[in-house]
Amino acid sequence: MNQVIELIQADVKKPKPKASELGFGKYFTDHMFVLDYEKEKGWHSPRIAPYQPLTLDPSALVFHYGQSVFEGLKAYRTEDGRVLLFRPEKNVQRLNNTCKRMCIPPLDEELVLEGLQQLIEIEKDWVPDQEGTSLYIRPFIIATEPYLGVRPSNSYKFLIILSPVGAYYAGQLSPVKIYVENDYVRAIKGGVGHVKTSGNYAASLLAQKKAEELGYDQVLWLDGRERKYVEEVGSMNIFFKINGEVFTPKLNGSILSGITRDSVIELLKDWGVTVREERIAIEDIYTAYTKGELEEVFGTGTAAVISPVGELNWNNHKMIVNNFETGEFSLKLYHAITNIQYGKAHDKFGWTVEIK
Amino acid sequence: MNQVIELIQADVKKPKPKASELGFGKYFTDHMFVLDYEKEKGWHSPRIAPYQPLTLDPSALVFHYGQSVFEGLKAYRTEDGRVLLFRPEKNVQRLNNTCKRMCIPPLDEELVLEGLQQLIEIEKDWVPDQEGTSLYIRPFIIATEPYLGVRPSNSYKFLIILSPVGAYYAGQLSPVKIYVENDYVRAIKGGVGHVKTSGNYAASLLAQKKAEELGYDQVLWLDGRERKYVEEVGSMNIFFKINGEVFTPKLNGSILSGITRDSVIELLKDWGVTVREERIAIEDIYTAYTKGELEEVFGTGTAAVISPVGELNWNNHKMIVNNFETGEFSLKLYHAITNIQYGKAHDKFGWTVEIK
Repeated sequence: MNQVIELIQADVKKPKPKASELGFGKYFTDHMFVLDYEKEKGWHSPRIAPYQPLTLDPSALVFHYGQSVFEGLKAYRTEDGRVLLFRPEKNVQRLNNTCKRMCIPPLDEELVLEGLQQLIEIEKDWVPDQEGTSLYIRPFIIATEPYLGVRPSNSYKFLIILSPVGAYYAGQLSPVKIYVENDYVRAIKGGVGHVKTSGNYAASLLAQKKAEELGYDQVLWLDGRERKYVEEVGSMNIFFKINGEVFTPKLNGSILSGITRDSVIELLKDWGVTVREERIAIEDIYTAYTKGELEEVFGTGTAAVISPVGELNWNNHKMIVNNFETGEFSLKLYHAITNIQYGKAHDKFGWTVEIK
Repeated sequence: MNQVIELIQADVKKPKPKASELGFGKYFTDHMFVLDYEKEKGWHSPRIAPYQPLTLDPSALVFHYGQSVFEGLKAYRTEDGRVLLFRPEKNVQRLNNTCKRMCIPPLDEELVLEGLQQLIEIEKDWVPDQEGTSLYIRPFIIATEPYLGVRPSNSYKFLIILSPVGAYYAGQLSPVKIYVENDYVRAIKGGVGHVKTSGNYAASLLAQKKAEELGYDQVLWLDGRERKYVEEVGSMNIFFKINGEVFTPKLNGSILSGITRDSVIELLKDWGVTVREERIAIEDIYTAYTKGELEEVFGTGTAAVISPVGELNWNNHKMIVNNFETGEFSLKLYHAITNIQYGKAHDKFGWTVEIK
């Protein structure tokens, strides 16, 4: 990193919403981090600028061929007023992996991490302090070249925008109902399901709508090849506790490599729990359920951290997990991770980064 | 259709590029057609407005979750100065099919066709008249709501932009070299490969890059499940002439339903040629090749109309088709379709629509 980050202060500061009104992804802070790319110049002009609309030609490639990628992470306010990030370097690494798959030129990871930290330092007052609230961080890249041919863009914009968000759970963790999807498919090996590109999310909307219409909260995706093996749930990774051991689908080329997933695996191993990353047939989950061995199911992701699963519906086999109550591992993992994120517990893994 | 299309004239008209400079998708005309959608109002405010940049919040859903769809068609200048569209109602129907899969509210097809025709009428002088040139028409929809949650947008923008484009072929048709892709996959049944959504194109970029690095023009995609069956080539449909009969992959839920594909099938049938829409194993193509029965291969699409294939490379089996020369059917189909498009032949199928 040898580029200087310019700071252009916003003239007017917006009023900050009340913690009770936050919700998710509705409010944005006063500034954003911006980097531009042109083929001749590379990534250039790093700056923190006022949060403002983007002006793009109607033919900008992002609108037509979906060349856009993103990341998501959070900044947390500790009880003594400090601000912590959770494993931000993992997000930046993953962003570059995504760029590679999507033919977007890689970013200087050090510069992005520095820009992220300077931006949050400036917006520190936007990090809410009520229990469970946080500042959601959205780095993303869009293809900006005005051109209608199908090929990688010659110009891009990288931005980081910030949104204060409310607590995911009002009080205690609440188990969700999951519909196992047999018809719609999220991704396949050889495709782009293992990276965070925009099109994966648009492709998931219809199955999510169907699940909601059937009275479920989220979809559990099966593999696109045989519709037999478990992939991920909604936009989270999934874990099963069976007979005291924990199983999660192996990263196979169509599953997103979740950072919460990785943290959960490290924590469980640290606690002496056996974690098996394997190909998991949904039929085997059902068999374990009928034998009374399916003890817990939970999703992992940045938004919920841990989302306990109370029901799984596979071909009208309704599996009620742990009496629709939050399981022991779900609760213990949730507290272990959030306590590190909010600076309430010793960070023995060195996962947090404090904003100066 | 009961909405009136407002006309806002551009103050300044741009100079028109020379036919020799056109290329593809680089120049845009003076006006565009616009429709807005809000959940409470539906699609509203149809208007023809000056071609101008779009201003969107950085959190607009299109940038993050790729909820955007498009179409592509052309307007053709006849020798006697009229302007023709080719089967535009098919594009509008397909756009609505795409909307359905992508959770975008459907458009009034009559209004879109009317808007398209009025726009081209106003931009008539932009339809170039040199041999093989045309006015490319790009209808598209983007999700505009500023929000970071993963769900369908509550607001959209539909636009039609126009770009004068050069001839695809400089002189006669030129056969292309095709690389059969075994690793990367374009789409799978249950996904979104059968509709025109932006993410499909971003997902295809890396395989195209690989093919080019290996000295090929385009990729032939195999099915995502078994990597055995032929799907489409680049962004075209594909046809094989074997022993006098013509084969093309059946629309199976992961192949785009091409309008040129449909026109080719109708024409061939009209000529008494047997056309088989089937599942086609790439191995069977190779077997036909080794027996000397693979007489012609060609792609079909709006850009090239017919693109003869001179070489197919499957696992380093190089199949040279018809001595790398344009085949009889390729040429006959190319002329039949372009003669209808440019008003040189009787349009017995009623495919063309004249701009008033």
